[in-house]
Amino acid sequence: MIATRLTERLGITHPVVSAPMAKAAGGRLAAAVSEAGGLGLLGGGYGDAEWLAQERRAAGNARIGVGFITWALSDAVLEDALASDPAVVMLSFGDPAAFASRISDAGVPLMCQVQTLDHAKAAIDAGAQFIVAQGAEAGGHGAKRATMTLVPEVADLLADRASDTVLLAAGGIADGRGLAAALMLGAEGVLVGSRLWASAEALVHPNMIAAAVGASGDDTIRSSVMDIARRLAWPEGYTARVLRNAFTDRWHDDLSGLIAAATVEAARYAEAWKAGDTATANTFVGEATGLIHDAPPAAQVIAEMVTQASDLLGGGWRR
Amino acid sequence: MIATRLTERLGITHPVVSAPMAKAAGGRLAAAVSEAGGLGLLGGGYGDAEWLAQERRAAGNARIGVGFITWALSDAVLEDALASDPAVVMLSFGDPAAFASRISDAGVPLMCQVQTLDHAKAAIDAGAQFIVAQGAEAGGHGAKRATMTLVPEVADLLADRASDTVLLAAGGIADGRGLAAALMLGAEGVLVGSRLWASAEALVHPNMIAAAVGASGDDTIRSSVMDIARRLAWPEGYTARVLRNAFTDRWHDDLSGLIAAATVEAARYAEAWKAGDTATANTFVGEATGLIHDAPPAAQVIAEMVTQASDLLGGGWRR
Repeated sequence: MIATRLTERLGITHPVVSAPMAKAAGGRLAAAVSEAGGLGLLGGGYGDAEWLAQERRAAGNARIGVGFITWALSDAVLEDALASDPAVVMLSFGDPAAFASRISDAGVPLMCQVQTLDHAKAAIDAGAQFIVAQGAEAGGHGAKRATMTLVPEVADLLADRASDTVLLAAGGIADGRGLAAALMLGAEGVLVGSRLWASAEALVHPNMIAAAVGASGDDTIRSSVMDIARRLAWPEGYTARVLRNAFTDRWHDDLSGLIAAATVEAARYAEAWKAGDTATANTFVGEATGLIHDAPPAAQVIAEMVTQASDLLGGGWRR
Repeated sequence: MIATRLTERLGITHPVVSAPMAKAAGGRLAAAVSEAGGLGLLGGGYGDAEWLAQERRAAGNARIGVGFITWALSDAVLEDALASDPAVVMLSFGDPAAFASRISDAGVPLMCQVQTLDHAKAAIDAGAQFIVAQGAEAGGHGAKRATMTLVPEVADLLADRASDTVLLAAGGIADGRGLAAALMLGAEGVLVGSRLWASAEALVHPNMIAAAVGASGDDTIRSSVMDIARRLAWPEGYTARVLRNAFTDRWHDDLSGLIAAATVEAARYAEAWKAGDTATANTFVGEATGLIHDAPPAAQVIAEMVTQASDLLGGGWRR
């Protein structure tokens, strides 16, 4: 049993929250994580209202939260999400200030994911109850800092300025070793992406799961080519970690060439995504891919992670 | 007390080895680390025989090791080092195969620092008794993987192929939280750079210590500009993490411009280094700089690190 302020405040059994991975973290995954004793988050991503409604239905009666990409969020989509009484709203990649008071007014806890100390300060200013310090080893979007140093540095900031705020670690955490390490670094729980992306309930093409299972962390890259190919206007400073493939090999060092060829390449990329063609479309997984060898049910991932961490910590942990 | 196969095999009290930081890790630092119960390594760096002889004298009778940059090592410098009967020889950044048998013949344990899984396989093939998995959050030279994922992935490799080889973690470890996290990830000890670089015994200009103490991990960058400015022929794939400054701001995105201006810029950089001008010469410290607020004696760093880790681990650790 690992008991922290995260488990206490969220009323959950295990200090494990699933990352709101755009497209991949649907209702079945979120519900499975919550039913296994963690907290599942829907991948609200870029704010597709229809997808969100569908995946809320897929989650049934499970108590889940929802996460959004802050710079892509609209008031209307947020209102719609708040109307479903989520366990938390998580915001990442952008200043949460514009949305914080609306979330607070709805009585919903705000969880902010941060990639730098300045982001953490903005999250404190926005009144976040939970801060997720995300290292660049994470899959999908992120920035540059590593989990190993960002977590304790943010922990020190919170101890100094906002000791009631609860810290989670994200980036590179795929088993009980990672969970136990995160607790040692000063986090009170973890946000798990890649390991739950490779689960039975995630909405991921089987070819991409197979690619991730066969890969080492050395086979990943942080790049902007996927965002250019998908015509997504990501702000400066964010890239996404994916498995390297022929597409990143071709374009990673030639972004202006890709921009010039975007009409053709975007169509080709979209087709490849639908077809599960992993040589062109990218597999969104982090460095933890090297620790992932299967895609079991989410409940099994969480049970094994917590058991292994408890064993490493000598039978449990309480803060 | 933290007892692992590292402390047992090296006959040391604490599972802490100081990184062989070129120029900074001289005899006083290495001796202080060994006298404090860890193992100190001289920063053999690019193989300056005169500097090494001088710093061996400065270490007095302390039992220490020595580390080299593999691609810059010559047989003559290695022979000279082996003649002093070091506790270990550490090799990093290049294939250890050419030197491994000579080190083994001398009866000296080989420690290989690795940045990828392929490096780890090469270290196993070379018969390394100790492997240091170094994440890119580290200061100075390194590559791309993060400590949080590289350590468990290499641990799994060793469990499969070389279970007698002892694993250390490096990169981002500056206090007891980092040491405890490294043990959770599967390491049996840590290699500490930045935190001991900022110590009373290190050979570092006080302006650079002051710059590091005032910085956050967000203020660091991995770049090649320092190597171009110092005319060092680093192989592809390695960069160095330093504090960002006016020099990196000017040249990081214009390496060909720097190469074209190298005659002037190299002289300017060398002058700045001597003068401790941190706006031009770079401060070689990792992301852990955000956890560093002073430059105490090395013995204090190690005592506090081990005490904090033991407390976090519930009173100690044994593997």
